[in-house]
Amino acid sequence: MQIRIKVLKEELSKSGLNGYIITHTKNIYYFTGFLDISDAKLFLILPLDGEPTLFTNPLSYSAACEKATGCTVKLVKSSEKIWKEISNQVHLLKLTRVGFDDMDISLYLKLIKILRNVDFQPKTELVWKLRRVKSDEEIGFIKRAAEFADAGMKAGSEAVRAGAYEYEIAAEAEYEMRTRGSEGTAFETIVASGPRSAHPHGVCSDRMIRQGDLVILDIGGVYKGYKSDLTRTFVAGKPSSKQEEIFNLVLQAQNQAFQQIKADIKASDLDDIARKAIEEKGYGDEFLHGLGHGVGLNIHEPPTLSKSSKDIIEEGNVITLEPGIYIQGFGGVRIEDTVLALRGNGQKLTKTPYTLMI
Amino acid sequence: MQIRIKVLKEELSKSGLNGYIITHTKNIYYFTGFLDISDAKLFLILPLDGEPTLFTNPLSYSAACEKATGCTVKLVKSSEKIWKEISNQVHLLKLTRVGFDDMDISLYLKLIKILRNVDFQPKTELVWKLRRVKSDEEIGFIKRAAEFADAGMKAGSEAVRAGAYEYEIAAEAEYEMRTRGSEGTAFETIVASGPRSAHPHGVCSDRMIRQGDLVILDIGGVYKGYKSDLTRTFVAGKPSSKQEEIFNLVLQAQNQAFQQIKADIKASDLDDIARKAIEEKGYGDEFLHGLGHGVGLNIHEPPTLSKSSKDIIEEGNVITLEPGIYIQGFGGVRIEDTVLALRGNGQKLTKTPYTLMI
Repeated sequence: MQIRIKVLKEELSKSGLNGYIITHTKNIYYFTGFLDISDAKLFLILPLDGEPTLFTNPLSYSAACEKATGCTVKLVKSSEKIWKEISNQVHLLKLTRVGFDDMDISLYLKLIKILRNVDFQPKTELVWKLRRVKSDEEIGFIKRAAEFADAGMKAGSEAVRAGAYEYEIAAEAEYEMRTRGSEGTAFETIVASGPRSAHPHGVCSDRMIRQGDLVILDIGGVYKGYKSDLTRTFVAGKPSSKQEEIFNLVLQAQNQAFQQIKADIKASDLDDIARKAIEEKGYGDEFLHGLGHGVGLNIHEPPTLSKSSKDIIEEGNVITLEPGIYIQGFGGVRIEDTVLALRGNGQKLTKTPYTLMI
Repeated sequence: MQIRIKVLKEELSKSGLNGYIITHTKNIYYFTGFLDISDAKLFLILPLDGEPTLFTNPLSYSAACEKATGCTVKLVKSSEKIWKEISNQVHLLKLTRVGFDDMDISLYLKLIKILRNVDFQPKTELVWKLRRVKSDEEIGFIKRAAEFADAGMKAGSEAVRAGAYEYEIAAEAEYEMRTRGSEGTAFETIVASGPRSAHPHGVCSDRMIRQGDLVILDIGGVYKGYKSDLTRTFVAGKPSSKQEEIFNLVLQAQNQAFQQIKADIKASDLDDIARKAIEEKGYGDEFLHGLGHGVGLNIHEPPTLSKSSKDIIEEGNVITLEPGIYIQGFGGVRIEDTVLALRGNGQKLTKTPYTLMI
């Protein structure tokens, strides 16, 4: 934690800032070790010179005192006063150029009105510069989260059959992850069957699976706040030749991109490799999204793997590779793994085998 | 949906606005019927005169076309262009005073820079004015979500015993809700046992429950996007007399507030009733939070039931009543129900019995 604060201060210095306000729960965890529930209103104020202060409400105060390190914890009794506490602290520390990761617009407008001489700047990218490169400890946490996802995928896939409801598949996958120690789910589980599988963001409905349906199952585990992301596509029954063709094409596209992972490659080049493989077979318009995204404390974080991404893959990035083909009326196939980028290659953290039949 | 848009337009008119931008996924669902996953970047632009337009990315486009009603759905191919689409649309519709529910600050700063003559105002309260009063259909959805929570509480409580891990309790509660059709969990399940029960936001850890521990179990189900919220506190084994004393006091405080629910009562008065009951017995400083909050598509929404709240309870509000006493080193007790406010009384939507022993 101390090293992270030190590196963030170097970034502040480079950006000409003399202070930084952190409001995102996960960023507060990253810099203090205290992870609160997601909609808590906490604020960490970091001066370029000196220790950070964590402002918490009564709900979180006792847990923050127990867990947060490298900062002073202060109790704010009334949540309506939080803007006052922030402006007092900024004034007290004589901060004049203050970056922040994110902020409610009403709060932002209040602060710039009260502190007219302070230059507040949205600078979320400073935190992401640190967070996108994972330490060995963080990689260990994501590996555990990936093991949860593999176990959940096995349990979920075994429940796929004609006559089952989508939410029953989700129930089995989630239960398996939870009983192994996963901290809930990394995101809202997707079970998209039949025509619904043609929606990339199909979440999970009360649809009953029919014989011959494609079923996309997209799940993630959580360990120490760190997430994994895993998708497989199955057929309830015997796959048709077109289902097999599309499945093999998506798998091939993923594999070709995976083979090229290394430090310093452009994220857009990886997207390009997978996209070309799919375009060559005439399904380019049906690959509706980017190849993947970073994973860590957030399920979607930098780097972004897409056509228009400017990101460069670094050693220690954890990313997803998730090409998909979505054909309206027919259905969709997506295959996704969570992958660690190393200096010269990639290493899959999720290890579920690739099979269309269950 | 059409009526909701009409009422929102009346609110715009009263506020002197001629347009409104909606970015919150749940607000888009409320006004169009299309519910996307939570971090989707969608925008609904509503002119005072005319139909709204929903801008979606390729990921959500097909599902939005299928589900969204009362609006035109437009595809934005690149997410980097979203600010361009918004500014074009605002310009095209000649909007000059535009409210919005919420917005990324970077996007906000971009928009006010490009459209210097447009007055953008954060006006999330206009949407909440509608959303806080639930229709019969919405109440029906919350009732179903409350049934899920009751069933989950039964399954979770049956798993409470010395030797069980907190996450195992969560697993049983969540599995029961899911297999009955709950759309995941309403929030991250809280299982806080032993000394951890003194943290109001204790989430769920890998702590093993010991004989005599207090165990707080706080869960919620989801149906059609609508949530419920339910907490019970149990003891693993035979309760001590102090555990019983605190349990009975919290239950009494909740009941006294419940008896006074009616339309037009101040939310702060309800908080006051419960707080006084607890203060009288000397535990005022240990009741660390407000009495409750509204529940609907969000787990925490208006009205707020607290000392400093300015909210007035209306017929059709769905709220939680959740007094708690948290004693550092000893443990905590919280009892919470989801309650519908009617004209002259309250109606509990969660129906789990109140017992400290399992």
